[in-house]
Amino acid sequence: MQLYQRDAIESAVSIDTAALEAVENAFAALGRGDVVQPPILSMAIEESNGEVDVKTAHIRGGERFAIKVSPGFFDNPKIGLPSLNGLMMVFSAKTGLVDAVLFDEGYLTAVRTALAGALASKHLSREDSRRVAVLGAGEQAELQVRALQLVRDIDTVDVWARSRESAAAYAERVRGLGLSVNVHDEVRAACEQADIIVTATPAREPILTAQDLPDGVHVTAMGSDSPDKRELDEEVMIRADAFVCDTRAQSEVNGELKAFARQAANASTSSGSGSAGSRTDSAGFGANSAGFGAGSAGFGADRERQRQPPFKVYELGRVIAEGQRLRVSDASITVCDLTGTGVQDTAIASFALARLS
Amino acid sequence: MQLYQRDAIESAVSIDTAALEAVENAFAALGRGDVVQPPILSMAIEESNGEVDVKTAHIRGGERFAIKVSPGFFDNPKIGLPSLNGLMMVFSAKTGLVDAVLFDEGYLTAVRTALAGALASKHLSREDSRRVAVLGAGEQAELQVRALQLVRDIDTVDVWARSRESAAAYAERVRGLGLSVNVHDEVRAACEQADIIVTATPAREPILTAQDLPDGVHVTAMGSDSPDKRELDEEVMIRADAFVCDTRAQSEVNGELKAFARQAANASTSSGSGSAGSRTDSAGFGANSAGFGAGSAGFGADRERQRQPPFKVYELGRVIAEGQRLRVSDASITVCDLTGTGVQDTAIASFALARLS
Repeated sequence: MQLYQRDAIESAVSIDTAALEAVENAFAALGRGDVVQPPILSMAIEESNGEVDVKTAHIRGGERFAIKVSPGFFDNPKIGLPSLNGLMMVFSAKTGLVDAVLFDEGYLTAVRTALAGALASKHLSREDSRRVAVLGAGEQAELQVRALQLVRDIDTVDVWARSRESAAAYAERVRGLGLSVNVHDEVRAACEQADIIVTATPAREPILTAQDLPDGVHVTAMGSDSPDKRELDEEVMIRADAFVCDTRAQSEVNGELKAFARQAANASTSSGSGSAGSRTDSAGFGANSAGFGAGSAGFGADRERQRQPPFKVYELGRVIAEGQRLRVSDASITVCDLTGTGVQDTAIASFALARLS
Repeated sequence: MQLYQRDAIESAVSIDTAALEAVENAFAALGRGDVVQPPILSMAIEESNGEVDVKTAHIRGGERFAIKVSPGFFDNPKIGLPSLNGLMMVFSAKTGLVDAVLFDEGYLTAVRTALAGALASKHLSREDSRRVAVLGAGEQAELQVRALQLVRDIDTVDVWARSRESAAAYAERVRGLGLSVNVHDEVRAACEQADIIVTATPAREPILTAQDLPDGVHVTAMGSDSPDKRELDEEVMIRADAFVCDTRAQSEVNGELKAFARQAANASTSSGSGSAGSRTDSAGFGANSAGFGAGSAGFGADRERQRQPPFKVYELGRVIAEGQRLRVSDASITVCDLTGTGVQDTAIASFALARLS
């Protein structure tokens, strides 16, 4: 068994086309139904304003699978520690023995998240996309742009962030990537000429509205990854010509589709099962990414109908696996909601270990 | 961060009264409602006849919590490797940073499982219990007896196992503990004079029937820990004067209560939601050990009623926390079903780390 620390992992793995291909192959396997991906294990440590998530997935026939533990302790910065942390364990899929522990402190998660954003744009945005609006100024706001450069000839970034100082600092960093960067005070202005919009914030209320969307834009929403976060107004998804998510089950619990699930829960409160029902929803999605249908068959038909958003929901894995072309014209608006999946973790951890060992 | 291998962990932790107290305190905290214990994350690796479970729990106010990964790969013995394996990660509950990784290969699980069995007998069996019937001849069949010696003056063991050779080998080992051991060919004969019966098998069909129970006996069933295992005939539980489990949610999915859940699922097949409903059941238990009620409120009242077993279900944590005396006479029959809980893992890992560091 091997142990690897962050430094070694950073030297071995970066945002490049090989890593992109590894994550793309994993999504394709998910889309073909070749992945076992249990629901996320999540536990709150309320007294420390913390939580810990465990994600895993196995690509059938794959040599290894990873289990990732991601603690988020949001009071840590007060004592000089980062909020996010974590490690990945890599197991042999033949014997269950631990092949390696990657003490990456969340680095591989940041990489695979950025790569998923690039894949969304690769399969959904216009090929001639040049200009990217970025909402948010954190680490992912930067990594998403770096990953986008793998799939589109980006030349300009328009950034908006809640803090103008953060946006200005972000602009400096991203200019270092050889890009022209403009800082904006309003979301609308940042998005006005965008070919691609990336939302990468911890927002708890929508920051992007349908009125902010120029024709032909692709939106990747990667900020929302827990039940209390949202970035997109419902109308953004309703206006889109195609809505894609990494997995529907997770989008309904942690991502943007929960806007519609919440409405359904409210609508059924009169039957007396509203709030408890919504907890059951989140746990009931079953053991694979296509589990929504089967997992919810125990509910009444009325509840089922209420929970359907008023548009078709595509999943990124199937878009990739089947080569679905959801953009039907240069004016089409596409939206992809990413919550982060265990299969990405298994893919990037296996990729990292192959490079390290 | 510290790494510890199995040898060091075995030297530091054994089946003794200090470890028993640590696990007992954890159950008491669970019984008081002071524990956050998410549902088990479980993933099958079908092509290797393997599965991996992840358990965790946090005792509110506790300094640390553990996350345990338990792979079980049942073809491993063919290539000379043990089936069971695993490790425990210990995290600071203040910061989420990893304090230690215990590469215990399942040793701490074996210890905390044996200790839970001792706690069941401590709180449920007759104080004058001397004679133990053990069904099964594996590692737990032995450790359960060693742990029982902490709480009762055991003098005789009656063992039955599917393989008589295994039972004979077991008898030799247990005689080494200073006990008189008899090997039996029939379950009934092994149990005839038992004060305590321990079932510690991987059986998939019931091995113990109500007719096997002498008056006044206490039964600890610790073998069943997955949806496909069972040790107790339904009538054992129905005949018992008190039925206790570690957590009801887990017993219904992985333990002996699923005998009744399965009947309920069958009974509701005519409504067209039978099989899918039973999957939703297992995922719907919510985020704590008392979650059955809230998690299932989304189902119809009929289904809810069908799933009730025809007896009251007690939980070991509350029995301990509240000092419940469920044995009302020397003739009472008591049954405790143990499936293994995350809070035991957090307790034994914290205990181990305190001894190691």
